[in-house]
Amino acid sequence: VRWPQGFGSTGVACGIKPGGEPDLGILAASEPVAWAGVFTTNAAAAAPVRWCRAALGSPVRALLANSGNANACTGESGVRAVGDTAAAAAEALGCSPDEVLVASTGPIGKRLPVDRVTAGIETATCSLTDEVMPFARSILTTDTVTKTTDVEVDGARLVGVAKGAAMIAPNMATMLAFVATDAAVPQPSFQRSLSRSVATTFNLISIDACESTNDSVILLSSGLGPAIDPDRFGLALDDVCGSLAEQIVRDAEGGTRVMRLRVSGAPDDRAAANLALAVAASDLWRSALHGADPNWGRVVAALGRSDRTLNLGSTSIAIGGMALFDRGEPAGDPARATAAMAAPEVVVEVVVGTGAGCAEVLASDLSPDYVKLNAEGTT
Amino acid sequence: VRWPQGFGSTGVACGIKPGGEPDLGILAASEPVAWAGVFTTNAAAAAPVRWCRAALGSPVRALLANSGNANACTGESGVRAVGDTAAAAAEALGCSPDEVLVASTGPIGKRLPVDRVTAGIETATCSLTDEVMPFARSILTTDTVTKTTDVEVDGARLVGVAKGAAMIAPNMATMLAFVATDAAVPQPSFQRSLSRSVATTFNLISIDACESTNDSVILLSSGLGPAIDPDRFGLALDDVCGSLAEQIVRDAEGGTRVMRLRVSGAPDDRAAANLALAVAASDLWRSALHGADPNWGRVVAALGRSDRTLNLGSTSIAIGGMALFDRGEPAGDPARATAAMAAPEVVVEVVVGTGAGCAEVLASDLSPDYVKLNAEGTT
Repeated sequence: VRWPQGFGSTGVACGIKPGGEPDLGILAASEPVAWAGVFTTNAAAAAPVRWCRAALGSPVRALLANSGNANACTGESGVRAVGDTAAAAAEALGCSPDEVLVASTGPIGKRLPVDRVTAGIETATCSLTDEVMPFARSILTTDTVTKTTDVEVDGARLVGVAKGAAMIAPNMATMLAFVATDAAVPQPSFQRSLSRSVATTFNLISIDACESTNDSVILLSSGLGPAIDPDRFGLALDDVCGSLAEQIVRDAEGGTRVMRLRVSGAPDDRAAANLALAVAASDLWRSALHGADPNWGRVVAALGRSDRTLNLGSTSIAIGGMALFDRGEPAGDPARATAAMAAPEVVVEVVVGTGAGCAEVLASDLSPDYVKLNAEGTT
Repeated sequence: VRWPQGFGSTGVACGIKPGGEPDLGILAASEPVAWAGVFTTNAAAAAPVRWCRAALGSPVRALLANSGNANACTGESGVRAVGDTAAAAAEALGCSPDEVLVASTGPIGKRLPVDRVTAGIETATCSLTDEVMPFARSILTTDTVTKTTDVEVDGARLVGVAKGAAMIAPNMATMLAFVATDAAVPQPSFQRSLSRSVATTFNLISIDACESTNDSVILLSSGLGPAIDPDRFGLALDDVCGSLAEQIVRDAEGGTRVMRLRVSGAPDDRAAANLALAVAASDLWRSALHGADPNWGRVVAALGRSDRTLNLGSTSIAIGGMALFDRGEPAGDPARATAAMAAPEVVVEVVVGTGAGCAEVLASDLSPDYVKLNAEGTT
C-alpha cells in the first residue's frame, strides 16, 4: 500500500516500548494540507487529543504518532511533552509546531519519554517514503495485524491506517485512524464527511464497551488529485472508515469471533444503535458468543435494560437467520442456531417494533484470553 | 439459622435442574402477612416479577421460589405457568392463589416444567420447618455458598436469604433476596424502608454490569414480634440487605477479589454512584483487578466516559490508601499499590471535586473463569 500523492511516512522504534518494537510514526505532507478530525468525547481526553482539537481549522504539515504510551492523565508534563515533541518534528520537517498533529496510544498515566521521542524523530524524518506499512506497524499496541485500506474514487485515492485491539467502544477508544487523500474536496463538506462517516462506522463498533482517552480519526487531504464531488467523496470515505472499523473488530483483543448485530423497527436510527450497542456491551452475551451458545435470553435482558419501555410482544430475535424469539414467545429449539453461532461471523437480527429506525453494530466476543491479556501487569 | 416467629420454609429437588440439585423452595407464613417488594426495572421483566408486582398491597401467605429456570421471555405460557404453580401452592397450603408470591431464577427463555413444579409443591409442603438452610439452598444457581443473614432489633428479628452469582448489576439482576421479620412495622414505612435499603445496598453492587429480568427483593412481616420504631427497623433492614448484597459480590461467578469503590466530591450521591458504577462496569479495570495491576488509568477512562464534564484537575485516585493520581497529575510509582491490589478486598477511593455527593459500590473482578462459566452451553 502506498500513500496518495503528496504524502510520505515512516515508522521507527524509538524506545518507548521496552521490547524494541516500532513505536513512533510520522506521516508528512509535502505542503500544508487541509484536514478534518473526530476525537474522543471522554472527559479524560489525552493531551495530544486536546492539542489536535486546538489545531482544527488550520492546515498542517505532519502527524506524529506513537504507540506504547497514551500520554493521557499525565497532567502538565503531558501537555509539555506534546508541545516539545511537536516542536522537534517541526524543526526536522521545516515547519511550525502548530502545523504538527500528535496522536498517542498505549497505557494511560505514564509520562512520555520525550528525549527518546525527539531522538526518534531525527532518525525517522530521514526515512520518509510513500510506503504505508512501516507507519502502520509503528502505531500498533496489542493489535496482531496491521490495518490499512486503499480506496479509489473518480481518479482520487483515499488510504487509511488504524490501530485498535481493546478499549474499543463508540465515541471512541484507544483507537487511532488516519486517512490521507489527494482528492480536492471543499473544506466545509470535508469535516462534515468525516463526522458522518465516523458516526456510522467507528462509532458503531464495540470490543469491550470501554471508551478511551485517545480516540482520534484524522483525515488529511493534499488536494493534488482531481476535484471530487463531495457526495461521492463521502461514500468513498464511508468505505475507508467502514473497512478500518471492521478490521479493528476482527482483531479484537482475545477475540475469536465477530457478531453483526442488526436492530430494526426502532423509533429512529439512534435508538436502534443504542439497543445494538447495549447487546454488544453484555459480558454474558459476549461470553455465550465465545462458547457458540445461542443463549438469546441474554440478548433480551440487555435490550430490556437499555430500553425500559421495550415491548416484548413486538420483539423478535433471529440468529444466523433462525428465529429463536418471535414477538414475545420462544420460537423452536435454540440448538438449531448452534452451528451459526460457531461461525467466525454471527449475524444477530433483532426487531423491536415497526419503526423505521435501524442500525448495525459490529462487535466481538469475550474470551478468557481477553481477561488474561488485560490482567497482565502494566505497572 | 431459623426464621422469625410465624414463618416456615422448605427446599426440595423437583427436577427442574437436570443434575437433581434442590430447585424448589417454599417460604410460608402461618397467617396472611404484610409484605413489600422491589423488582427489576428491566423491560423484559419475567412473568413471576409481573405476578408479584400485581399482588403488591395485599397480604400474602407464601412465597414459591425456583432455581434452574427464570421463566422469563416465555410469553403467554410463562404467564400461565406462574398462575398454575401459584394455584398448586395455594391448594396445598389452604389459601388463595393471589396470596402466593412467585420468584424464579435460572436460564432465560425456557418453558417452566409446570408438572414437575406442582408435583414438587406437594412434597415440599409436607416438610415445612423453621430451618432456613433447605430453602436457602433451593434458590441457588451457580452460587457456591448459601447467603443468609440474621439481625435482631429491639426484640424483633429479621432473617434474610439471597442468591446471586452473575447477571448482577443495579436495578438489579438474576438476584433474589427474601427477608422475613416478625417486627410489627406500619405498612407505609415498611415498603419505604425496603425501597430505601435496596437503593443503598443491592443497587450499589455489580458483578458483570448485566441486569436481569428476574430481580426481586421481597420483605415479609408476620407482625408477631414487638412493634419497632420504623427508623430503627430501617437501620436493621439496611444491615440485612447490606450483608446479603456483600455476600452476593463475594460469591461472584469466577470472582477472585472484591473492590470497594468510594467516590466523593460529586455534586450529589446519585452522581457519585453513577461514577462508581461506571468503574465497576469496566472490563478493562476489572481485568486489571484480577491481575492485581494498579492500572489506575483505566479508572480515569471509565470516569471520563461516564461524566463528560469531569474536571481532571480536581480528580484524585487512591488505591489501598496510596495516592496514584492527584488532581490531574500522576502521583508516584503505581507499583506501590501492587500489594494492596492483591488483597482479597481492594479499596479504591476517587475524589472528583468538592461536592457533598458520595457513594460506595461493591464489585468484583473479571476472571477467565467467569468467561468459561458463561461460555458453557445452556441450550
